[in-house]
Amino acid sequence: MNRPKIAVDCMGGDYAPEEIVKGCLLACRELEVLLYLVGDEKRIRNILEREGACDKERLVIVHADDVVGMHEPASNVLKKKNSSLYVAGLLLRENKADGLVSAGNTGAVLTVGKFLVGALEEVERPAIGVALPNPKGRTVLIDVGANVDCKPKHLLQFAIIGHTYAKEILGIQNPRVGILSIGEEEGKGNELVRESYSLLKRSKLNFLGNAEGRDIYAGTFDVIVCDGFVGNVILKASESLGMAVLQMIKEEVQKSLLAKIGALLIKPALNNFKKKADFAEYGGIPLLGAKKPVIITHGRANAKAIKNAIRVANEFYLHHFNERLSEDIKNLSPKEVRI
Amino acid sequence: MNRPKIAVDCMGGDYAPEEIVKGCLLACRELEVLLYLVGDEKRIRNILEREGACDKERLVIVHADDVVGMHEPASNVLKKKNSSLYVAGLLLRENKADGLVSAGNTGAVLTVGKFLVGALEEVERPAIGVALPNPKGRTVLIDVGANVDCKPKHLLQFAIIGHTYAKEILGIQNPRVGILSIGEEEGKGNELVRESYSLLKRSKLNFLGNAEGRDIYAGTFDVIVCDGFVGNVILKASESLGMAVLQMIKEEVQKSLLAKIGALLIKPALNNFKKKADFAEYGGIPLLGAKKPVIITHGRANAKAIKNAIRVANEFYLHHFNERLSEDIKNLSPKEVRI
Repeated sequence: MNRPKIAVDCMGGDYAPEEIVKGCLLACRELEVLLYLVGDEKRIRNILEREGACDKERLVIVHADDVVGMHEPASNVLKKKNSSLYVAGLLLRENKADGLVSAGNTGAVLTVGKFLVGALEEVERPAIGVALPNPKGRTVLIDVGANVDCKPKHLLQFAIIGHTYAKEILGIQNPRVGILSIGEEEGKGNELVRESYSLLKRSKLNFLGNAEGRDIYAGTFDVIVCDGFVGNVILKASESLGMAVLQMIKEEVQKSLLAKIGALLIKPALNNFKKKADFAEYGGIPLLGAKKPVIITHGRANAKAIKNAIRVANEFYLHHFNERLSEDIKNLSPKEVRI
Repeated sequence: MNRPKIAVDCMGGDYAPEEIVKGCLLACRELEVLLYLVGDEKRIRNILEREGACDKERLVIVHADDVVGMHEPASNVLKKKNSSLYVAGLLLRENKADGLVSAGNTGAVLTVGKFLVGALEEVERPAIGVALPNPKGRTVLIDVGANVDCKPKHLLQFAIIGHTYAKEILGIQNPRVGILSIGEEEGKGNELVRESYSLLKRSKLNFLGNAEGRDIYAGTFDVIVCDGFVGNVILKASESLGMAVLQMIKEEVQKSLLAKIGALLIKPALNNFKKKADFAEYGGIPLLGAKKPVIITHGRANAKAIKNAIRVANEFYLHHFNERLSEDIKNLSPKEVRI
């Protein structure tokens, strides 16, 4: 049977290899995938034996005796050719695997995606898209950190990549695309935005014009494009704002007994909300436009988050994401933009 | 007596002139200020007479029969020379007033600040600083929208302006200054950040290096500098995230009776939190580095928010903010940066 083969970096992440391997087991039971478990063979085998059964021929251990540390410079991975991450990347490069999941050093995973796996022929720069939650659904913010100092043609491609992601993976028909700026009208924003705007306008995307910061969590766009510097600071500021808000509310709640009781009563509702808001839960963050999908999960990823990331990698394969993306780039770009 | 004179644009904002004039009355009762109430004389007088007494010689109506609409292009204000906002700006330009408060069209208020009031001699570009709340206190994010396409020397000045604001107005000794980037180490970030970093390093600021998005709400820096495009989208994304989170939690709470009761019990704690988080409550957003302080409040500002903005304008005057800022720019800039 022609099942997708996903390489999993078992040594990356705060809870590696324990939670990573458990996540592989969960995925093996729920999904029709073959997994390459890349890392320290002995440790991986111990966990597999302890945690019990799954179809063994779908869990293939690939030994790698080195590891890229969470705080090492990203470029180290290209020198550490025996690291679990590099070996996993090599499986993609050599067409032995169809996708990669890692909870390791984000910069190093990106480096592997960009330089070892490499970009699709039609894609100049792969980009990271994240499906942020809002009361009405999800909005793809792209790029959130793979590229700084972008040119308008890059933002055009990010928009198309986001479009294909929203359409094929999130199931949104005719995604509404906007470019992040600081005013609604055409002509507002910085130089990069103004020049990209005119390219986007001439594309065949469903381009609605400028989106503002307030649109990111309002559900008014399905895809919002920005350069990776801007997207990254927004993503990280959002995470930190969420935590700060919870902590500040907690401090206020501690001051009153009634409020403490109230907090207990709304806890289940809060947990439901957290589930929706947690994009680790949702399946990690994909580097899009690489020759094979590379899914980056949070360093704190647990077994369930790893399983979800494998599910997402599987979906990319089943939906023929890369074929669709190549077509969309050819069909939706303005004529004068040659790749 | 030499009391500060503040010009208030009584016709700008969603609840003008009613709430604006009431805010002036609150300020007149609490603060030793003289207020110029700029706008439709008859309407302002009616509200004053209805709302009752304050020391009348400290409430001076300055008639202006035109208004800049909330959705007009910002530059219109320079043509509408009889608009309340323009007339208020003129009072600053002509040294008749020491500060300006407006809840009107943000872009138009900025335009008045930058072009009619103008920058301090030492300041190349005034910038908007906002004191964002975090569990430990406040962090000044600057610039949040006055300047796009900045150069390193501008970011250096924004940092010094933020430093002076944190020190003189927020009372923070030796403020910890960072530059917003997408990685902790020197060398990370885009071109603008890398070049600005080296200028900041050679300044006499207490410069700690790169701040990341997650630092904005973590209390790890007192001042975080960025260009106005980035700062603006972060500010607006943060507001919208806050609202989205509340709405999504509300929807979850509605599904359970116990959770509804819990929500009632924590409401007072939530309201306390909201007060801390609401920077309108805290006194609006100042355009810093203009010859006189210009305070922009939210379009939805009520009387209390207007009063707080007047209080902030008053503090700028009492703390000799502009004198301190001019000194700091001279003393803290690296030697090779000539203004």
